[in-house]
Amino acid sequence: MAIAVVGSLGLDTIETPAGRAVEVLGGSAAYFALAARHFLPVSVVAVVGTDFPAEARKDLEHPDVDLSGLEVQEGKTFRWEGVYSRDMNTRETRRTELNVFERFRPKLPERLRAFTDVFLANIDPVLQREVLDQLQSPRLVLCDTMNYWIHGKREDLLAIMKRVRILIINEEEARELTGEPLTHRAARAILNLGPEAVVIKQGEHGAFLQRRDLYFTCPAVPIESVVDPTGAGDTFAGGFFGALARMGRVTDRTLRAAVVYGCVMASFTVEHFGVKGLLRVQRAEILSRADSVTEMTRFALDDTARLVR
Amino acid sequence: MAIAVVGSLGLDTIETPAGRAVEVLGGSAAYFALAARHFLPVSVVAVVGTDFPAEARKDLEHPDVDLSGLEVQEGKTFRWEGVYSRDMNTRETRRTELNVFERFRPKLPERLRAFTDVFLANIDPVLQREVLDQLQSPRLVLCDTMNYWIHGKREDLLAIMKRVRILIINEEEARELTGEPLTHRAARAILNLGPEAVVIKQGEHGAFLQRRDLYFTCPAVPIESVVDPTGAGDTFAGGFFGALARMGRVTDRTLRAAVVYGCVMASFTVEHFGVKGLLRVQRAEILSRADSVTEMTRFALDDTARLVR
Repeated sequence: MAIAVVGSLGLDTIETPAGRAVEVLGGSAAYFALAARHFLPVSVVAVVGTDFPAEARKDLEHPDVDLSGLEVQEGKTFRWEGVYSRDMNTRETRRTELNVFERFRPKLPERLRAFTDVFLANIDPVLQREVLDQLQSPRLVLCDTMNYWIHGKREDLLAIMKRVRILIINEEEARELTGEPLTHRAARAILNLGPEAVVIKQGEHGAFLQRRDLYFTCPAVPIESVVDPTGAGDTFAGGFFGALARMGRVTDRTLRAAVVYGCVMASFTVEHFGVKGLLRVQRAEILSRADSVTEMTRFALDDTARLVR
Repeated sequence: MAIAVVGSLGLDTIETPAGRAVEVLGGSAAYFALAARHFLPVSVVAVVGTDFPAEARKDLEHPDVDLSGLEVQEGKTFRWEGVYSRDMNTRETRRTELNVFERFRPKLPERLRAFTDVFLANIDPVLQREVLDQLQSPRLVLCDTMNYWIHGKREDLLAIMKRVRILIINEEEARELTGEPLTHRAARAILNLGPEAVVIKQGEHGAFLQRRDLYFTCPAVPIESVVDPTGAGDTFAGGFFGALARMGRVTDRTLRAAVVYGCVMASFTVEHFGVKGLLRVQRAEILSRADSVTEMTRFALDDTARLVR
């Protein structure tokens, strides 16, 4: 049992009200893999340049993270630099250097083509399709996307939607994709585009999942201080997909639990710069935060019939 | 067992993407009372002008709504006109005519001074204090406030906070009041100002409650179409306080349930213009939406120990 992720790897320079981190490991595949590996082994398909530092590679190295699909191309690694606002709800991109990522054409090694469970992180939907075309028997394919592709490659994205089982998307992007301002209506409109289920990430408000008649919401885990929100969404996807694939079946019950694990894992990422939170987190803390979500959401209405007039 | 509300009554002209309503019954006391009366009797302390239409008064008339504290003053009734944005997340005030509300000095009839459970809706904190001073033995006093008072009468508001048991406030206003961008940190800062508990209203994301070590979140009930968000917050307060007072004790358990009822009642308000949703709603629908919140939030993590590596 293992999953593969196809996405970006890069070096991020991040400035938040809590400080600054320079050229630390980043990219959707990094956050996803380091979250999902807490549930099951992950294979990474991505590209870096020959300048990719040993330190960044070391952050990815783990017995449960397979890097055989990590291509090293002549040239420089993808770089991104961003600055967050005081409340960290918005960020400004200062610099994006695609470098070797610009020529990324994911080519799955033979072994990975047999994978049934694959996460197509937020990359060009044309590349997402190329990955799908290489899979021999896709069973559980999830994907993420962003505004840039919603506006720039809408048709390609819509074609992908017909081939993925679950879409994971930001609340704002779900609205832009569907033109529906209400989140659960945007979710339903997405289900009409193809996916069996959709998860809408709501940042500090947690996440919302819809599948047929199932609506499920899960709050974000309250944490003492948000240091760096970068990668929270990809971490959510890693926790969600990791738990779901580990449970083995897609049912209302496993989907609910997977959303909780997604929210739990994301809470560790935002507490530290870059992937540091994911590198430090221990099993016991994951279990403990999962319990805290139960504590935060449970209630009993056994009095209802008596209470309401 | 009964509660009293001191707040505004007025005639609202509301424009939303769903249409327009002209001079319909509005004001915090109207929404609060019409929500709370589904749980227990409510006495309204407010002022209207001699022009207050019979139709608006009729909307308030109900065996469980006591209007003996409703003062009719020579002059015109408070009027408000607002226009909502396309996604209804923001609104612009076109016109505010305070009229008789400008001279409102709530004077509680003798009978109401004996009330122990009182909601101080969003009015000038100086008036909130005057109401508190008239109460013989306040037990469960809740209050709401807004930006206008946070900036304009901060000292008076802080004095009130030391005398109320639970503050109900919007997320944005909680941040402005405390300077804390994280919701649960804003909540904790509010508890340091005096209240035993705080409820932070998050609009379409539901509500968050904190009391000592208790964190509780409840999602908004997804509804087919939002017609008019006016009064959702006051309706939440009416459902929350109505259920809490009816349960009789303030415990973690009753607070959790009360938040759920607050979210449930608010969902009926936003489905129609003005108070129409609250006038139409039947007991069975309240019970059914409360069940749907259970359905939307429940999950089981009995696999956790096996899942996480």
